[in-house]
Amino acid sequence: MTRLNRPRYAARLNAFKVKGGTVADMLAGAGRVGGLSAADLNYPDHFAAHDPVALSRLLTDQGLVLNGLAMRYYTEDGFRLGAFTHPDPDLRRAAIDLTRRGIDACAEMGGSQMTLWMGQDGFDYSFQADYGRMWDDTISALAEVADHNPAIDVAVEYKPNEPRAHALMPDMATTLLALAEVGRANTGVTLDFAHMLYAGEMPAKSAMLAARKSRILGLHLNDGYGKRDDGLIAGAVHPVQTVELLVALARIGYAGVIYFDTFPDHSGIDPVAESRANIRLTDRLIDLAARLAVDPALAAAQARQDAAAATTLVMAALLGA
Amino acid sequence: MTRLNRPRYAARLNAFKVKGGTVADMLAGAGRVGGLSAADLNYPDHFAAHDPVALSRLLTDQGLVLNGLAMRYYTEDGFRLGAFTHPDPDLRRAAIDLTRRGIDACAEMGGSQMTLWMGQDGFDYSFQADYGRMWDDTISALAEVADHNPAIDVAVEYKPNEPRAHALMPDMATTLLALAEVGRANTGVTLDFAHMLYAGEMPAKSAMLAARKSRILGLHLNDGYGKRDDGLIAGAVHPVQTVELLVALARIGYAGVIYFDTFPDHSGIDPVAESRANIRLTDRLIDLAARLAVDPALAAAQARQDAAAATTLVMAALLGA
Amino acid sequence: MTRLNRPRYAARLNAFKVKGGTVADMLAGAGRVGGLSAADLNYPDHFAAHDPVALSRLLTDQGLVLNGLAMRYYTEDGFRLGAFTHPDPDLRRAAIDLTRRGIDACAEMGGSQMTLWMGQDGFDYSFQADYGRMWDDTISALAEVADHNPAIDVAVEYKPNEPRAHALMPDMATTLLALAEVGRANTGVTLDFAHMLYAGEMPAKSAMLAARKSRILGLHLNDGYGKRDDGLIAGAVHPVQTVELLVALARIGYAGVIYFDTFPDHSGIDPVAESRANIRLTDRLIDLAARLAVDPALAAAQARQDAAAATTLVMAALLGA
Amino acid sequence: MTRLNRPRYAARLNAFKVKGGTVADMLAGAGRVGGLSAADLNYPDHFAAHDPVALSRLLTDQGLVLNGLAMRYYTEDGFRLGAFTHPDPDLRRAAIDLTRRGIDACAEMGGSQMTLWMGQDGFDYSFQADYGRMWDDTISALAEVADHNPAIDVAVEYKPNEPRAHALMPDMATTLLALAEVGRANTGVTLDFAHMLYAGEMPAKSAMLAARKSRILGLHLNDGYGKRDDGLIAGAVHPVQTVELLVALARIGYAGVIYFDTFPDHSGIDPVAESRANIRLTDRLIDLAARLAVDPALAAAQARQDAAAATTLVMAALLGA
Repeated sequence: MTRLNRPRYAARLNAFKVKGGTVADMLAGAGRVGGLSAADLNYPDHFAAHDPVALSRLLTDQGLVLNGLAMRYYTEDGFRLGAFTHPDPDLRRAAIDLTRRGIDACAEMGGSQMTLWMGQDGFDYSFQADYGRMWDDTISALAEVADHNPAIDVAVEYKPNEPRAHALMPDMATTLLALAEVGRANTGVTLDFAHMLYAGEMPAKSAMLAARKSRILGLHLNDGYGKRDDGLIAGAVHPVQTVELLVALARIGYAGVIYFDTFPDHSGIDPVAESRANIRLTDRLIDLAARLAVDPALAAAQARQDAAAATTLVMAALLGA
Repeated sequence: MTRLNRPRYAARLNAFKVKGGTVADMLAGAGRVGGLSAADLNYPDHFAAHDPVALSRLLTDQGLVLNGLAMRYYTEDGFRLGAFTHPDPDLRRAAIDLTRRGIDACAEMGGSQMTLWMGQDGFDYSFQADYGRMWDDTISALAEVADHNPAIDVAVEYKPNEPRAHALMPDMATTLLALAEVGRANTGVTLDFAHMLYAGEMPAKSAMLAARKSRILGLHLNDGYGKRDDGLIAGAVHPVQTVELLVALARIGYAGVIYFDTFPDHSGIDPVAESRANIRLTDRLIDLAARLAVDPALAAAQARQDAAAATTLVMAALLGA
Repeated sequence: MTRLNRPRYAARLNAFKVKGGTVADMLAGAGRVGGLSAADLNYPDHFAAHDPVALSRLLTDQGLVLNGLAMRYYTEDGFRLGAFTHPDPDLRRAAIDLTRRGIDACAEMGGSQMTLWMGQDGFDYSFQADYGRMWDDTISALAEVADHNPAIDVAVEYKPNEPRAHALMPDMATTLLALAEVGRANTGVTLDFAHMLYAGEMPAKSAMLAARKSRILGLHLNDGYGKRDDGLIAGAVHPVQTVELLVALARIGYAGVIYFDTFPDHSGIDPVAESRANIRLTDRLIDLAARLAVDPALAAAQARQDAAAATTLVMAALLGA
Repeated sequence: MTRLNRPRYAARLNAFKVKGGTVADMLAGAGRVGGLSAADLNYPDHFAAHDPVALSRLLTDQGLVLNGLAMRYYTEDGFRLGAFTHPDPDLRRAAIDLTRRGIDACAEMGGSQMTLWMGQDGFDYSFQADYGRMWDDTISALAEVADHNPAIDVAVEYKPNEPRAHALMPDMATTLLALAEVGRANTGVTLDFAHMLYAGEMPAKSAMLAARKSRILGLHLNDGYGKRDDGLIAGAVHPVQTVELLVALARIGYAGVIYFDTFPDHSGIDPVAESRANIRLTDRLIDLAARLAVDPALAAAQARQDAAAATTLVMAALLGA
């Protein structure tokens, strides 16, 4: 399979937040874009005003299918020092149980996937924490939430820094080591393009590792400058690295949703226009990836690691150069 | 002026170095590329085997005009701790006098510009040096070499790190502060794209500052990932930022040489093929810059800082998206 | 003057925020620390529940003097795209007028300084904005707010990134270029240690530039890993670079407040304990700086840029090594 | 075991290189330091002028024991595009066979360890190489060289960038994934402090992962600013992170050599004075680590992730604050 056929696109719903509104308003915003066909809901916050049944109906009303749920461990709920790694056993238990309820809500809505970004599970200072205990606490929590419902996939999304100075799960390979130790079939990773850049990775290379050592369960497209999680329009800064990732995913056979994890709301951009830019640019990059994935001259250049030939071929395809 | 018309291209001669060869062989290599019309020579090393008259003839033989000279302060000549900032007054004097002889050689060959990258002028440790004295030593040395021949422009090329952990002249604005203090009309800056990324700068913004506060005397195109001076093919990683810089330079009216400061020799790429890739890609990006520089819809989007509209327009031009 | 005598310490009041509380509760929290003698208030948010007269009394009640005010341009007030650089002239005017009212409030309370961190004045995308217009808009706004009350100093605090991908005023030298163009005597810079690291700067070197080209009006101590604005306890990661900065400031004669711009609230640390750690560690580093500032052996090592000797001396003083 | 007892120190021999000299002169330089008791030799370059028997005698003459050998794959030998990942099967075979000869030389000298830093095994461009093939080629080469002599340990030293823009083996976790796939008992990792910082890692955390998933075979101490491989005196920038690593290694029971992988030669520092500074500072940090490793108050603070308490304790120990 060398083509990402007719991808389903989703957008970050919070980008459509309006003052005083609920998740219904966010879904309506996503509906106005015109090219989105899936959505992720955050648990528990997107379930504050509507139960799963009502949320399913709201999704259907906007022509959206549920891609999955994503956990949020809010600092006001006590998770400032950590969720799965919180040093207080009661709060750690609360984080695990919250995740299990999130998985139940996902199943109730017919979803198949829970995404975990353990943003608070990290440390700020040397000597702040016992890294071995944090690791063990994470492994056992991941195993427990994976076992809670083997029919729901649990996807780990890594990010090197922010909000904590250092994350416990900062990069692809650490995540893969952890998932190997967890050893559950219903686990995998979510690729977030800007997080990969932030971690200093070449996204297509990380995708190779993920596909060999675990499962790629989700794909977040966005872009940035590699120094932080900028949340820019997909392909706006690194079109070549984005295409290379799309070629790798086509070869791997990734058939999941493409979720635009971008922050138009942070910089005052209209989220509908921004979503349309994401879709338009990604459509184009997917077309280019489909061509490059089967280009024998490119494969030959790669086989001899001939960067001048490969770059010339790729830039000719992209820019008509 | 909104167009970079018929730019003259130059390449880094050392990329064409062959074992046991001289600068004549490097010039022959550059001549084989077919699209290069200018060259920079390094002083003193490129003058080791040939005098200025012979070098001028070698250039002419390859159809190349002299763009200018670039100083090299080699550690084996004692400049490991610094050139203009060396704590030993005799070695500091030697660096200044070497630069003056380089300017003489430049003038003798009919060149108009000396580029100074003060690579050793920095520090590795806190408490290693008196920053104020380093600053004063740099200012007075720059003034002296600028005064040596007011007909020769002196261009400062900054770089944040490497070989020293910290450079005294790490970024555009520090360089502009220094040049303001030097106060000589025959001074200016050389823009190096990968150095700008390495310094965390947006190249087109730095060009704006340079044009307002000093003069842009040179342009080094190349590319990289912003974490170090990668020396990749121009536009290969950041085509959008490269086009934005070219638009800025077209508006400023920069009419100088485009020098490809790339390192095919570091990663085993054939330098002739690599130079051709630089030229082909830059030709295309210059065409795109010419179109975007006069696009009223883009100007309108920029006037309202509408990133979605601007990005859509730019990516449509670049990728046909 | 080679000693920072009896510094006045201030802490970030928002670190003491309690749910449902007002600035009075924050000031009470700061009062509990025991070693803080000054405070900065944010305008307008810290003035929401109390007028200047009431705030002055609250400060006095806690034994705190007002160090100054710091502007906050909130995104919910429309400043998401910028304050002094907002493309909408009405919103840009609103930002300037808000700043002028802040300066009035500062004067009314007997304060002498307004700190401006123009966090939203930046850009996320290439081609998003006209950098020259942003620069001009910033220069004229700074001049206008400086002229509003020449008795109040206006201090610019730079930061390279976040919340915008790129700040217009990212580093020391760009800030100094801007202040030179502003040309008002009641302007200067605020040094923020973690922002300097984030900008890739060596703090003591930036202090040298600031003292030569402008005025150092404020000092924010904190620490981090240089990849983002971590907000850690002062000296916790870079004690050597902090001491070097303190030596530089002692030589310059800086006699202002030391403000701990740290984020205990972001990572669940008790702010009172954290403030005490800031004070205890900074007291010690100031003592060490006082010794090192007059050490003739260190001065001699620096004069010859002898990093082995200088490092040995400094680490012996710090660690007893 | 909570103490790094009487460590053996080694220094980078090339720091003692003198013009026209051989490895004998380097060893004599190391001998002059006075506190070094071990040495690593580079293969093949340190074996150019002397055979293994002669080298063993030269080591003994200077009171040095052989710590091990480290491979160097020189670009002039054709390894510019890679060693174990070279696309040309003949050159890849040459790299493997050179390594096997190095292991033979190591065994002949009674050494027990070969260190592999695969500096050229990476890529500069997207689309330059097939990452999966590079991975497979690395795994099979590592297995072959490990199998060549099971009595000799093979230690992989990772580094994220430089000389290639991206290394195939950039960080701890990727290295551990590779070693798990290699599956040979005589393999492990070498920790290089500055490489860890360069990879964005917290060194003590990486040591925890290494000890759990593989074996720690070597320790390179040095320091830097995290943006590149600065090669500074151990502990000169990050004393706290260095002590934390030493505490972790004491708990793990690491009893190997501490090798100072620093670059005094790059910045004009006398290598003897610099080695003495390394030893003096590391001796002190090891003493501090021994105290902190058994401090119950620190262990209690870590158990509750109390960064204020932990930092106060640690800085009191280090600085007497």
